[in-house]
Amino acid sequence: MVGGVEFAGVASGIKGKGLDLGLAFFKEGMHISALYTRNRVKAAHILYNRKIEGNSPVKAVLVNSGCANACTGKEGVLDLKAIGKNLSGILGVEREEILFASTGVIGKRLPADTIIRALPAISKELKGTQVETFARSIMTTDTFPKVVQETFQGKNTYNIVGVAKGAGMINPLFATMLAFVFTDFPVSPETISRAFRHAARESFERITVDGECSTNDSIMLFTKTGDEDPDGLAAFKDALSSVLKKLSMMVVKDGEGATRAVHIIVKGAKKKEAAEKIARRISISPLTKTAFFGCDPNWGRIIAAVGDADVPVQPGKIEIIMQGQVLARDGAEVPFDEGEMKKLMNKKEIEVIVDLHEGKMSFDIFTTDLTYDYIKINASYRT
Amino acid sequence: MVGGVEFAGVASGIKGKGLDLGLAFFKEGMHISALYTRNRVKAAHILYNRKIEGNSPVKAVLVNSGCANACTGKEGVLDLKAIGKNLSGILGVEREEILFASTGVIGKRLPADTIIRALPAISKELKGTQVETFARSIMTTDTFPKVVQETFQGKNTYNIVGVAKGAGMINPLFATMLAFVFTDFPVSPETISRAFRHAARESFERITVDGECSTNDSIMLFTKTGDEDPDGLAAFKDALSSVLKKLSMMVVKDGEGATRAVHIIVKGAKKKEAAEKIARRISISPLTKTAFFGCDPNWGRIIAAVGDADVPVQPGKIEIIMQGQVLARDGAEVPFDEGEMKKLMNKKEIEVIVDLHEGKMSFDIFTTDLTYDYIKINASYRT
Repeated sequence: MVGGVEFAGVASGIKGKGLDLGLAFFKEGMHISALYTRNRVKAAHILYNRKIEGNSPVKAVLVNSGCANACTGKEGVLDLKAIGKNLSGILGVEREEILFASTGVIGKRLPADTIIRALPAISKELKGTQVETFARSIMTTDTFPKVVQETFQGKNTYNIVGVAKGAGMINPLFATMLAFVFTDFPVSPETISRAFRHAARESFERITVDGECSTNDSIMLFTKTGDEDPDGLAAFKDALSSVLKKLSMMVVKDGEGATRAVHIIVKGAKKKEAAEKIARRISISPLTKTAFFGCDPNWGRIIAAVGDADVPVQPGKIEIIMQGQVLARDGAEVPFDEGEMKKLMNKKEIEVIVDLHEGKMSFDIFTTDLTYDYIKINASYRT
Repeated sequence: MVGGVEFAGVASGIKGKGLDLGLAFFKEGMHISALYTRNRVKAAHILYNRKIEGNSPVKAVLVNSGCANACTGKEGVLDLKAIGKNLSGILGVEREEILFASTGVIGKRLPADTIIRALPAISKELKGTQVETFARSIMTTDTFPKVVQETFQGKNTYNIVGVAKGAGMINPLFATMLAFVFTDFPVSPETISRAFRHAARESFERITVDGECSTNDSIMLFTKTGDEDPDGLAAFKDALSSVLKKLSMMVVKDGEGATRAVHIIVKGAKKKEAAEKIARRISISPLTKTAFFGCDPNWGRIIAAVGDADVPVQPGKIEIIMQGQVLARDGAEVPFDEGEMKKLMNKKEIEVIVDLHEGKMSFDIFTTDLTYDYIKINASYRT
């Protein structure tokens, strides 16, 4: 529980059935810090929130699944205004104190009337203990709700709770999909904006499911208003990093259709940027990802992706280690036991190290395997 | 039939069963022009051929499937030398007059002894009419052989025949996989190198299956030696473009697991480079490609890919037309009949136009859908 934060979730009817509307409410207002998608096409909630943020503390965030409210023109923003106006009356706050987030199908108008009809009910459900219901209400193809809670120490004991959703259109260069973090630690966005960006870069920007950057990606951090507690600042930053890292790992493990989480570590690079480009190239390679699915130690596909990463490499120096087993050294195969490797790969987690043996810089990223279920989920997602 | 060119194909045992070794022989020698992969990791045949090409006319090219002979170190090149030495004795030519090409699994040594044992037999099979056997012998996951023959007119009537293979690790920025073109038109590589590059750029570099650039991609053009026929030059260039275009379309239609070929046309861009980046980004989007498989007119995923192409766009101007039906205009949905669209999309070929309405430049590319069979083929390709 985070002091002053209440949650609720209801089935409003956006999806037809199931939870699809979540609300977080902060009676006394909270500071907001937000990171939004770098996709040039941005959802209405991002355009809307940006005009509000920075003015003053906010008091609520309403989140819907089932409709992305992206590519909906001016109407998409007007729909949020109408909903905001209604909700402000019910909660007794200003419209400008309410933020939004959406996830779901792109290009469809938000069913504003449906949502407005559900506002009295969702407001009555608000409770400090309902964070899991909130987490469930924002799920789309996710198979489990994603909540992380931690405590840390300053002058007082503080709480931090994070909520996230996946599971497709997940690409690492962007604050991925929806994540919300709430803390009763009093700190202003200005004080922690660098720490927040850093934590996002080291967590959500280090995972990918399908290399697809969403129009709706948003990470929102809500912090308590009031006098800052400098004694707790370091512990808060650690807790923030920890919560984002754990949430992002939940997202990658629940990637659409994924059966394994794969940790790609590229080391021995002259520059970190080169290691990053190679790691990202491997992490979106469909041939590599299908091989992980099939427990096929196909290091040839990995080295082909390395060579296709648009950075200079010396093929004759590359070493590839999978699950602790050296598969290739000096760019050529090292004999290994195929049956044994298949067993080693048949795990929920796979680790791949690509050592370029050219320098000392490294970069790592988490990805998923590519499976039949990814195709199944996405071949007819809309209908 | 192309005068002076003989073909053969045999089951040498590289794959265990089926045709896996092809030979083309030119008694009187031919000029060679070749385009090789831009992947930084290159197969042994590319390293080997590069040392030979340009010296003099060549007399044979030996092509194997089932083993890529890539990432095989110095041994990979030495294996080709050993095979070349044997074949030169059998054909009565110099070792330096024989080129190679390979396709298959990366990282495994070429079974040189197996291939050498098959050389007497394959040499006996050589015939001007055996081009389809040659085409079959270089197939891997291809479902049909890819041969295109045309004639054109200069002082005489000339012939051109092209052979290609797909079907995975196909990415457009590179001379994709293996293609061979033979013509009895006498022209030197110098005369037509620009035309050859241009024809490749407009054909094989305009298709993708999975965004994966192979270590082995090679297009080899064999032309007759002797006095050039200037009267036929324009017709030859047209025929060359036509043959490469037709072969590349065969490759995309036979992409691994593909059920549809999708023509992505991006127009209305200020710069051609921007149109190209957007077209290529859409063409490798797994969410877009799974939607094509499911006949889902999910234009939202297309516009999300447009926004993720790393070029500035004005989302509010974008128009998306699929199979002649406008799905979105001014960046927002235009009402359409879902059932009707599903029917329109349930075809072997789909056309998508993305009009940015910002300028006059355009770029187009062909891609495939992403299906269960792509996963099936690649989850355990090696084993």
